[in-house]
Amino acid sequence: MWEITENDLESIAIGAGILGTGGGGNPYIGMLRARQVIREHGPVTVVSPEELDEDARVVCVGGIGAPTVGIEKIRGLQSYSALRAIESYTGEVASALISNEIGGSNSLEPLIPAAISGLPVVDGDGMGRAFPEFQMKTFFVYGVPCTPMALCDEKGNTAIFTEALSPKWVERMARAVTIQMGCIACYAVAPMSAKAIRETAVPNSLTTAKSLGDAVRDAQVHGRTAIDAILNTIPGQRLFEGKIVDIERRTTAGFSRGNVTINGLNDYSGESMMIEFQNENLVAKRNDHVVCIVPDLICLVDTERGEPITTELLRYGFRVTVLGFPAPPLWTSQEGLAVAGPRAFGYDLDFSPLRVS
Amino acid sequence: MWEITENDLESIAIGAGILGTGGGGNPYIGMLRARQVIREHGPVTVVSPEELDEDARVVCVGGIGAPTVGIEKIRGLQSYSALRAIESYTGEVASALISNEIGGSNSLEPLIPAAISGLPVVDGDGMGRAFPEFQMKTFFVYGVPCTPMALCDEKGNTAIFTEALSPKWVERMARAVTIQMGCIACYAVAPMSAKAIRETAVPNSLTTAKSLGDAVRDAQVHGRTAIDAILNTIPGQRLFEGKIVDIERRTTAGFSRGNVTINGLNDYSGESMMIEFQNENLVAKRNDHVVCIVPDLICLVDTERGEPITTELLRYGFRVTVLGFPAPPLWTSQEGLAVAGPRAFGYDLDFSPLRVS
Repeated sequence: MWEITENDLESIAIGAGILGTGGGGNPYIGMLRARQVIREHGPVTVVSPEELDEDARVVCVGGIGAPTVGIEKIRGLQSYSALRAIESYTGEVASALISNEIGGSNSLEPLIPAAISGLPVVDGDGMGRAFPEFQMKTFFVYGVPCTPMALCDEKGNTAIFTEALSPKWVERMARAVTIQMGCIACYAVAPMSAKAIRETAVPNSLTTAKSLGDAVRDAQVHGRTAIDAILNTIPGQRLFEGKIVDIERRTTAGFSRGNVTINGLNDYSGESMMIEFQNENLVAKRNDHVVCIVPDLICLVDTERGEPITTELLRYGFRVTVLGFPAPPLWTSQEGLAVAGPRAFGYDLDFSPLRVS
Repeated sequence: MWEITENDLESIAIGAGILGTGGGGNPYIGMLRARQVIREHGPVTVVSPEELDEDARVVCVGGIGAPTVGIEKIRGLQSYSALRAIESYTGEVASALISNEIGGSNSLEPLIPAAISGLPVVDGDGMGRAFPEFQMKTFFVYGVPCTPMALCDEKGNTAIFTEALSPKWVERMARAVTIQMGCIACYAVAPMSAKAIRETAVPNSLTTAKSLGDAVRDAQVHGRTAIDAILNTIPGQRLFEGKIVDIERRTTAGFSRGNVTINGLNDYSGESMMIEFQNENLVAKRNDHVVCIVPDLICLVDTERGEPITTELLRYGFRVTVLGFPAPPLWTSQEGLAVAGPRAFGYDLDFSPLRVS
């Protein structure tokens, strides 16, 4: 059990920005929003899945939409509205909140309703990274119900999806409504039991994000290489280093989609990398060969400072390092790959796990 | 108070097909569906708004989507699912049902949940015609709440819109979900009081539809002119007569949109009429001059038999007569025109009421 301080928020934003593989919403904006509510309402306690009471009711909250829109249309208290809507619909009171994904601003989204309600947040999440679609959560892969799910915008509109054929159907309906709401909205899902959280959540992800961010900031302060600091904190692989030379990006069907091309520098001189994304980075090709693919993590960081560069911030000229990290084991099972493997994103490719020495 | 017989269904389908101004869903399919449930569950009682108990709770049910899709993807029991969903959400039990619009198959939609549940239907509706969008109901124009509204498809998906800035926002969200559901779905709205029905519904519309259909069928049997029979039943105007020579029709954004061109015959020889529609006929131009415009009713009927031709059935070569009828007074007020006048459909035109001698 620990308390999230303002200082922790900055570290978590950096760490979750890296783990977000380009998506999850702008981490800096997420940090500013979380900081404001914590200043107003006081700090938020983090509990591990094991520390939850047996009869705990844990609500997963998150944002949905296109990150490109999220930097123009800042979220307000929609996740708090969604929490209240799901409590009212189910007649249950939440005893803790959990992030849908430890990526970008979504890693910090639960802190806003948590601070307002005086609830703890769970050290864990439903992805262990970020993914673009609602159904891509470890909870649902392993049988936790995905309905009812409440979706709120900043204007006061609320939709509750009470029955769905599958988690993918909630995604379809909620994405369509999100587009109408202006391409950014927040949601809350039916309360989960402590047992469900322990069995299906990716554990310790707030701690992991904080450790990553602490390491990056420490390296910056002490003039050490931030990339090394990252790779010393969690096992991963340096996939590429270079300069962004081309970006194709469009906001379509409620997502930010596109690809980025990087020309190699230093050890990678004369080579190129192309990364395709749908909110999050999905496939990295080095000289046309796939070197890392979803659900493994493909993370772009500023080569100098080690800070994450999310897909909505990609720009010509940035010097970036591409890092790869293995997906949490919950994703590399057959059930996990069926929901968030390459074929779930339309790639006619098998998953080939990243090798990390 | 009267009971709807199988014979009445055929008349109502014809009458509501005419009043539907081209939309409301295919009346013949609606008749077949209603007939089947009445054969299974027994007849349905029709009560006038005045006959409702003071504490009655009346649920409005209807279909939403594109009529072009509705003739390929036939509705099932979705309106019954929607009724159950809204009862479950509100904790109230419906004591009667009312049609959202006395147009096409939607005029008969409430009979399906009514027959299954043993409930009466109200002799009235929320439009007195058909309109393409959810917010275009007299109930909402005159202040009846439009939420919660439950939307169901045939697969088992259910969305409940619990809060909305305006009825138009329910339309936006529900239309988006309907498109995902396959462009045809059914809904039920929060129960209304007897007072609300008496003050805001268009009264007697089932009776009107039945009278129209009876008149058409009677004329067919006795070899009289069906068009005259229609105009003798409700006051209206013959706007044009001719042959369909062109149709532009596309299913887009959850609607059937397009226009139809008719070349004049007999008294109208050498002239032409163009009618623009969005599910329903909106504007009729005779030789490029507007002669009838929404919310007044523009109705295409088969010149020979007097039967309605809905927008999804328009075809080259059909001999048609175009009839105009004045809108119910609830629509020609300032509040009514704001919601369903020409400008609500994007026309830069003022409403000019049809003159009927």
